[in-house]
Amino acid sequence: MLTIYNSMSRCKEVFKPLHPGHAGMYVCGPTVYGDAHLGHARPAITFDVLYRYLTHLGYKVRYVRNITDVGHLEHDADEGEDKIAKKARLEQLEPMEVVQHYLNRYHRDMEALNVLPPSIEPHASGHIIEQIEYIKKILDAGYAYVSDGSVYFDVPKFNADYGYGRLSGRDIDELLSATRALDGQSEKRNPADFALWKKASPEHIMHWPSPWSEGFPGWHLECSTMGEKYLGTKFDIHGGGMDLKFPHHECEIAQSVAHNGTPAVHYWMHNNMITIDGQKMGKSLGNFITLEQFFTGNHPKLQQAYPPMVLRFFILQAHYRGTVDFSNEALQGAQTALRRMMEGYRRLRDLRPSETSDIDVADLKRRCYEALDDDLNTPVALAVLFDAVRVINQVNDGTAHATRADIDALRDLMDTFLGDIMGIRLDQDDAASIKPYEEAVDLLLEIRREAKSRKDWTTSDLIRDRLARIGFSVKDTKDGGFEWSLN
Amino acid sequence: MLTIYNSMSRCKEVFKPLHPGHAGMYVCGPTVYGDAHLGHARPAITFDVLYRYLTHLGYKVRYVRNITDVGHLEHDADEGEDKIAKKARLEQLEPMEVVQHYLNRYHRDMEALNVLPPSIEPHASGHIIEQIEYIKKILDAGYAYVSDGSVYFDVPKFNADYGYGRLSGRDIDELLSATRALDGQSEKRNPADFALWKKASPEHIMHWPSPWSEGFPGWHLECSTMGEKYLGTKFDIHGGGMDLKFPHHECEIAQSVAHNGTPAVHYWMHNNMITIDGQKMGKSLGNFITLEQFFTGNHPKLQQAYPPMVLRFFILQAHYRGTVDFSNEALQGAQTALRRMMEGYRRLRDLRPSETSDIDVADLKRRCYEALDDDLNTPVALAVLFDAVRVINQVNDGTAHATRADIDALRDLMDTFLGDIMGIRLDQDDAASIKPYEEAVDLLLEIRREAKSRKDWTTSDLIRDRLARIGFSVKDTKDGGFEWSLN
Repeated sequence: MLTIYNSMSRCKEVFKPLHPGHAGMYVCGPTVYGDAHLGHARPAITFDVLYRYLTHLGYKVRYVRNITDVGHLEHDADEGEDKIAKKARLEQLEPMEVVQHYLNRYHRDMEALNVLPPSIEPHASGHIIEQIEYIKKILDAGYAYVSDGSVYFDVPKFNADYGYGRLSGRDIDELLSATRALDGQSEKRNPADFALWKKASPEHIMHWPSPWSEGFPGWHLECSTMGEKYLGTKFDIHGGGMDLKFPHHECEIAQSVAHNGTPAVHYWMHNNMITIDGQKMGKSLGNFITLEQFFTGNHPKLQQAYPPMVLRFFILQAHYRGTVDFSNEALQGAQTALRRMMEGYRRLRDLRPSETSDIDVADLKRRCYEALDDDLNTPVALAVLFDAVRVINQVNDGTAHATRADIDALRDLMDTFLGDIMGIRLDQDDAASIKPYEEAVDLLLEIRREAKSRKDWTTSDLIRDRLARIGFSVKDTKDGGFEWSLN
Repeated sequence: MLTIYNSMSRCKEVFKPLHPGHAGMYVCGPTVYGDAHLGHARPAITFDVLYRYLTHLGYKVRYVRNITDVGHLEHDADEGEDKIAKKARLEQLEPMEVVQHYLNRYHRDMEALNVLPPSIEPHASGHIIEQIEYIKKILDAGYAYVSDGSVYFDVPKFNADYGYGRLSGRDIDELLSATRALDGQSEKRNPADFALWKKASPEHIMHWPSPWSEGFPGWHLECSTMGEKYLGTKFDIHGGGMDLKFPHHECEIAQSVAHNGTPAVHYWMHNNMITIDGQKMGKSLGNFITLEQFFTGNHPKLQQAYPPMVLRFFILQAHYRGTVDFSNEALQGAQTALRRMMEGYRRLRDLRPSETSDIDVADLKRRCYEALDDDLNTPVALAVLFDAVRVINQVNDGTAHATRADIDALRDLMDTFLGDIMGIRLDQDDAASIKPYEEAVDLLLEIRREAKSRKDWTTSDLIRDRLARIGFSVKDTKDGGFEWSLN
């Protein structure tokens, strides 16, 4: 029985889908005006695991993750330049060239992290009509007003009727009575109001016709609109980073309640932040390390390159609601742990079955489900899989025994939970092409053993020394065989 | 001086960009309701080479390739079901899930073929407002009429004022006087008229509000609209498959002339078809082999799997305006030719420089430019590169000599023309990870030579037989060394 922590109720709840057998989830995706950094990897991986787990449990999942390509202004505010248009101006490109460039790179990074593509990846700029229609209905309902060609959401009115700020727990009275900032926000009746539609200033290059002005939609609107278009007026899960709770998700809630008279989302889920030197890693703070920099090691704070699967493992080692602090030590720890896990996995194929078993795979499996059912507790699930690795090693050493069926069940356990659900790549793509080479190395070591048995030390030493120089480590095993690995 | 064949003027013309230093190109992309097949690979690769070559020549290229995700009806007609909506109905998915699924797979196939992503990849469904505004202007200009909530382009009127059918060379009088088909086209004044906007029937699930009806845009409209949005009212190059000349491109021309009073496109370029058993390979004909089937060999007509680079090479071996007939023999020929080319390329790194040179790299380079400048004559450019391989082999055999500078120039020639411009991947990603294994195989063969010299036939035969069984072929060379390759 899957339970998930609902940020709205602030407790773990049993997941009950609105439509039996189906699950709808919406997750806030990136604003594509720069490369993705480690902070972007966390929601992507967290909700990828949820998507994979729901699918594994048999749900037909529709997973919508949007691309923000218009309307997201600097400082997440209602005034200022559009983040993408600014980048386009600086790089002398058409804004959609900027969007395409960074979207392609985002996809490449996500694929490297083995994050599955969502079912639908709608673009904000591709849903302008839908957003205009959405605004019309909020205006008709009386929760928005037109001001000099722009449309603003009326937060005090909404608060009086429905309450505003529940998700983030903000003190709404304080918000509403805040001193009006003197920065040209005079179009708004109240500083807490937010833009649904903005009239484009002459230098604003992305704009569309609307009943109110040639302009563009407010940043919060796309998620309410596209969530409803693709998942319906009510859907199961809305996810995103904790930093989006306010104002973004609070505004989404206000919009959909004003639009439909009822909230859209059943379960709100929020992943915690990645910190660096104790501060949130963020694009606007300038303290980020991009995923590509991690993959190549090309950043002053990085002592080495970290392969994508190490980053994924690192993120899975913490529960998604806890903070994760970046450090080289922690990443190197993840790398060592992942290597140990993968060695166990590969050892599976060489295990010799016994007539009887003294291992309990069913219990390991039960504990994996228990961990994931407990609000996606991936660190506990990984700990169970390390127990499985310990069992594999014992069978390998002969200190435990497993039947063929149990060995197959162990493999299935790893394939399912480590591979399918937690998304660690178990078969590297080049595995097939490497195979003949691996057999060539095996042959070398056979020849070495043969040479040793003939006391041909020249050949035996030559093979040992040259393999070491190339980068192979060779370990003799007790039974007179050998194991090798590539450093 | 680059010349390209302009399908409109029916002759080769010197390429003169509208804006010096810049090149704008628009190419018709896929309708994403199924997997891409070999027929889709051809325009993608043809215009990828053009994009790469223009970039190489120093142009700042804006390359727009659209995604058709709405409005493309069965049989390319104005009546019937939307291709994507039909697929969605059959698979019980939301249409945009179908779009996302096949778009992801299209991108994966294109990446495998080393086709660069275009600068902008706009979706038809993401530009409904722009299409509505475009229709309004055509209506205002008098070249369209509203009929029961739909809007049709008035072909006879346009023909009288500007002429219709020039690109495809159709007999327009015959078209206009054709007997009216009795299939519910009665909304049209003339059967040659085509839809700009269609009122959605009740079962049509993709629709948007418009001044005329809740409906969707006609198939031809998106290209005129998005071409103008991202490249301007006049731009340099429009490309696509020859089968799109009529009606699609003819309708595009009519739309943009009616909209702006002047044609949008300077150079029309069309690639020829892939045929199979003498017939065009096409989705609607059902005689296609998907790219994935080629990559895996999983199709009754395929004798083996063909790696993506073999397909690319196969397509480059023909000029883009000639037909290419699929056959296993032709693909196997391409595979052998590509292997010979790549062997030459890899041999470059082992060439020993001499004090003097008797080879002429500058001439090879000149001939490569000459070939590509002649309407992208890739088969001739490849023939020149085979001449370069012959030179490399001669230097390798000692029958010709090259200085360090000339060897570097040869490498640069191959990197530039084979790699950068024709897009053959020269460095496989796994090259680095394979390196130590290659050295291990070298070591095995050294030990074998050593064993032979000691007349230790047991060891020498063991190595030979086992390597053969694993799949390596070993060839002894004249100088007492060896060469090996993996089958």
